[in-house]
Formats: sequence, structure tokens, C-alpha cells
Amino acid sequence: MAQLLDLKDDLDIVIPTIRNLDFLEMWRPFFQPYHLIIVQDGDPSNTIAVPNGFNYELYNRNDVNKVLGPKASCISFKDSACRCFGFLVSKKKYIFTIDDDCFVAKEPSGKEINALSQHIRNLLTPSTPLFFNTLYDPFANGADFVRGYPFSLREGVPTAISHGLWLNIPDYDAPTQLVKPLERNTRYVDAVMTIPRGTLFPMCGMNLAFNRELIGPAMYFGLMGDGQPLGRYDDMWAGWCAKVICDHLGLGVKTGLPYIWHSKASNPFVNLKKEYKGIYWQEDMIPFFQQIVLPKECKTVQDCYIELANKVKEKLGPLDPYFEQLGDAMVTWIEAWDELNPPPETAN
Amino acid sequence: MAQLLDLKDDLDIVIPTIRNLDFLEMWRPFFQPYHLIIVQDGDPSNTIAVPNGFNYELYNRNDVNKVLGPKASCISFKDSACRCFGFLVSKKKYIFTIDDDCFVAKEPSGKEINALSQHIRNLLTPSTPLFFNTLYDPFANGADFVRGYPFSLREGVPTAISHGLWLNIPDYDAPTQLVKPLERNTRYVDAVMTIPRGTLFPMCGMNLAFNRELIGPAMYFGLMGDGQPLGRYDDMWAGWCAKVICDHLGLGVKTGLPYIWHSKASNPFVNLKKEYKGIYWQEDMIPFFQQIVLPKECKTVQDCYIELANKVKEKLGPLDPYFEQLGDAMVTWIEAWDELNPPPETAN
Repeated sequence: MAQLLDLKDDLDIVIPTIRNLDFLEMWRPFFQPYHLIIVQDGDPSNTIAVPNGFNYELYNRNDVNKVLGPKASCISFKDSACRCFGFLVSKKKYIFTIDDDCFVAKEPSGKEINALSQHIRNLLTPSTPLFFNTLYDPFANGADFVRGYPFSLREGVPTAISHGLWLNIPDYDAPTQLVKPLERNTRYVDAVMTIPRGTLFPMCGMNLAFNRELIGPAMYFGLMGDGQPLGRYDDMWAGWCAKVICDHLGLGVKTGLPYIWHSKASNPFVNLKKEYKGIYWQEDMIPFFQQIVLPKECKTVQDCYIELANKVKEKLGPLDPYFEQLGDAMVTWIEAWDELNPPPETAN
Repeated sequence: MAQLLDLKDDLDIVIPTIRNLDFLEMWRPFFQPYHLIIVQDGDPSNTIAVPNGFNYELYNRNDVNKVLGPKASCISFKDSACRCFGFLVSKKKYIFTIDDDCFVAKEPSGKEINALSQHIRNLLTPSTPLFFNTLYDPFANGADFVRGYPFSLREGVPTAISHGLWLNIPDYDAPTQLVKPLERNTRYVDAVMTIPRGTLFPMCGMNLAFNRELIGPAMYFGLMGDGQPLGRYDDMWAGWCAKVICDHLGLGVKTGLPYIWHSKASNPFVNLKKEYKGIYWQEDMIPFFQQIVLPKECKTVQDCYIELANKVKEKLGPLDPYFEQLGDAMVTWIEAWDELNPPPETAN
């Protein structure tokens, strides 16, 4: 049974951080069997304390530069976008990434939620992007496809991404944070669903898992933070690129369970400064991604991503020179990916 | 506040039935302020008992024939598809339709669910079909649009349809009923969501509300039951037609809350006989609806529906002569609709 697999030899947990990882104490019963890849952001001379008993490797900026050489330019600095370096150096089939201000949430019954186990279940069961199932995930216990669901579509497609949610502090943009400073997410929605083909979504990097073999090269978190005009759009960018590529390649994206407990709201004034160009630019970025058609010749994630990079430069470049640089960085990222993840000898 | 409106002068409850309506007793606190339209299916000489204190009009087959004359041919007999006659004769802006084996469900807290009130809330708040919101209905209490949701899309679009769900007996097709006779839906998913544009869904007629002014003429439940090769695809057919038209006209369709308690599973052997052609045909019907593009010139629901009727005859007619008859009945339905619902004098 797929849901009993724990994938402990096949999954890395990637954590971007600037501080001691005390938050791992609460996750110990769930994370200790796994290997952690910690990406230390900010000053590399700082020491990050990791609680005893965890198996991990830690990379700071000096390590990133050493591993990637000139290609390190594609990895953001002073922004959680640096987490994608962890995706690059992992050798595992699956990735779970989580922020260090996220704690174990509870079901309404009071039971602690094993987020990783739910993500694994989501990734190991098919997605159904071609037709909507009104009882949500047909592969959940006690559920199935409803009357009127075509039988030819019930096998579904392989799941590439599992997007989890957050109780307590919702993932709002700065304007919404400013307007609703006290809003907390208390609604536990007991559902997992596939995001239909052709529909974009705002992918949050706080509580996210994916199949690295299926979609890894598209999980690039862009150029954000230090020296860049933009922040807090790293995961959004990855989500838009990855969804368009999943749709093209016939892969699925799920959202819903599991929840984590998001403990602290980031500063909305700081966020507004990071976001304001994104709030403006997304009105062009989203139509760009909604309208994109990848050519049939693009058969791998890398093919699709290079094509996307070219289109970003062509269509979004006129909006701001930033998109020229971003397009170049997307190409550098794929070069770095292929260097660190060479295809098996038998592949062509 | 939209959620406080009860619309009691603007909403009819349509109930198709062949038996005494004792089920209304349980709904009394919620339904008594509303006008009921009861469509009596089967032998018109039977008497249907309606509990005291309800305000209703009741139509049997003789009444249908009297009201519609030769156009009565488009209304199914011996099938719950006859419910759409109630949509035709209503003069109200909103319709809620429910089956007589559906009872009041309870929230996990034990509180009885006022299904009608939730449908009204769904219909009176906008839908968001153009981009997925990961925290579900952004217009629910305590929710909003998440980071990365384009601001230009946050006004949403008018909601045409609210599709409610069922606890206890799930709405499965006959093969699934046969394979899982004991499966019950116990999962209370506390969410309402918009079905994205371009995505079809299986619309069930058991617990359904809609804005008659916005989408009424598309809520035709087809030719089913007596003398027809098909049953149990009435609501599916209406759902596919209505969704395609909503997408074309920029209207929204929501699914999720409210739940009703579905008390009894229909006989899977009887269902299999009704459904088997549909199970086969839906493999063509669904690609037909997925690929359809309505011309820009179609600006009203009626325009769209007539165009659909023509395409049904052209594209599905070759599959079986049934679709020729269905296409003709779709045209008859629109003629009947326009006869009973003439446009206001001031309209052109």
C-alpha cells in the first residue's frame, strides 16, 4: 500500500534558514529518519546550531560558490529563494521543503499532523487534472470518483507536486497583511485536490513537496533578495513555471492537506518593499503564463524550461530589464542542474 | 451583509417526486418561509401528500402537458429530469432544487446545516474561475486571497451555480456502487471553491442552487427515463452545458458546502441499466464539451444553448440517433423557456 511507504531513503528535507534550527525539536518524531539539506542564508561566518541526532548537510554561501563556481550567480542571497540550491545538490527522488517558522499542526481532533506522511501519500497517488471530482481526492480513504466521471480518466496522471497549507498565519501579501493584521486561518479543510489543467495557482514554498525526477529542474526559485528589485515572489515564480510545464508534460499538481502551523507573521512593511514591484508585474506575468503554449518538441522538463526562459526574455523583457537577467539565470540554473545531475549513462 | 439575506421572496424550491413529501418535516425550520414547486413524476392519478403549512404549487404530467402543449415533449417522464419543468414555470430569480431522499446534515460540531442559507451565500458572493485560491473561497469568513493572487482578478465574476454535496450515501455510478456497496461519505470538507474556467465537473441535481436569471435557460435536464435509452445523466448533461456556457459568458460555478444527508442508495442493478449507455457515451460527450468553442456572437444563454444544440446534433448525432432527438429537444426547451419567460418590454 502506497500510504505505508515512508520513502526515508528516497527523500531529502530542504530547509533554508538564517538561525538556529530549534524548530526541529518539535518535528523530531517525524523528521529524524530523514536526511536534511540545510541552506544557510546570509553571513556565512554565522554558525547555525542543529539539534543533536539529525542527519544533515549544511551549505552556506561560501559552499554554494564553491560547488557552482560562476553559476552560483543564479542562486539568490538574503532570500529564502536560496532553498533551490538544496534541490540542486540532492540526489534523492523526492524533496520536502519547509520554513523554520513552521511547526506541527493539529487536526481538529487534537491529533498531531505528520505533514511529511501526507505529502508522500499525495505524491504516490495519481492526480486528476483533466476533470474535476466533486468529492475531492478520489484516492483518499473512503472516497472515489463520483457519477459522471469518465472511466477513461480514472487512472489519472503521475503527481509531480504536493502543495500543503498553513493554519494560524495565512500566507497573505503585504497589503492584505496590513488590512487584516489579526486574521488567522482556523479553518481545517479536510481535502486534497488536483489543480485542474490550464489553471495557475499561487504556490507557497513554506510547506511543499515534489518529485525531483519528474519536475526538479522547474523548481527554480528565481533571482530574489540581495541586489534584486524583488522578493517574496520566488515560490510564486517556481509555481507558475512548474504548473505550465506539468500541464504540458501531463503531470499533476495537488494542493490541500497537510497543514503545518505557521507561527509568525513577517513584517508587512518590509514585505511591502520586497513585493511592490511583484504586485505590479504579476498583472503581466500571470497573463504571460496563462497564454503560453510550449511546443510539442519540448519533451523534457529541461527543454520546457529553456523554452520558458527564452519566452520570459522575449515577452517580459520589455516590461523591465530584470526579466532579461531572470531569463539568463533560468538558463544558468538548467546548466547547473545538468552538471550536478548528469543523465544516467544509458540515457541519450 | 449578503450572508444575512434570506431571499425568501426571490427563491423557489423545486422538488421532483413520486411519493408523499414527509421529508419536508425535517426541513420545516429552513424551508417553510419559501415557495415550493413540486413536480410530480409518474402516474398523475396518484396523490402526493404535502405536510401542512407549506406554500406550494404542484404539477403532475397532465399539468405539464397543459402548460406546454406539444412542447411538453422536451420534459422527461419517469425520471427526476422532470425537475427542470419547475425551473421553467418559476418566476423567481433563484432556484434551489433538492431530492426527496435528502435530509438535514450536521456539521462535525453537531449543528444542523441550513443548506439553503449556505447556497444563498455562495450565490450572492463572487466566483473566482480565472486563478486558483489555495485557501478556497476568498469570500468566506476568515479567508481572503493569498499572496500571489493578482489584484485585478479579486473582484471575481457573478456566481451562476452553487453545487452542494452529500454526506452518507455518495453519488456514485452503478459500477462503483456495485464494487463498494458499503462505502459512506463521512468526510466533512469545510470548503467552497470555484471550479476553474475550462474545467468540467459532474453536476449532481440532488442539492443544487442557481441564479435563474443568469443561467436558467441552460438548466435543461435532457431527455431521460420513459421511452429514452438513458437515465441518470440528466444533471450531468445540464452541468456540462451550463459550465461551458458559464465559461463563455464569464459566470462562475461553485462547489462544496453545503452538505445534505443523502439517506438511501438507489438500486445499483436498476442504475446500471439506466446508465450503461451513458458510461459508454460519456467518453465522447466529455471530449465534445471540452473542445467546444462558442462563437463571440453568442451573447445570451439562449444564443449559446441553441448553438450547443446544433453542435450536439452535428458532432454527437453520428454516435447515436438519440443525440439528434436530444438536440431537437434542447431547441424546444428554449422555445418553451422564451414563451413562459418573455423578456421585459424594455429589453430588445
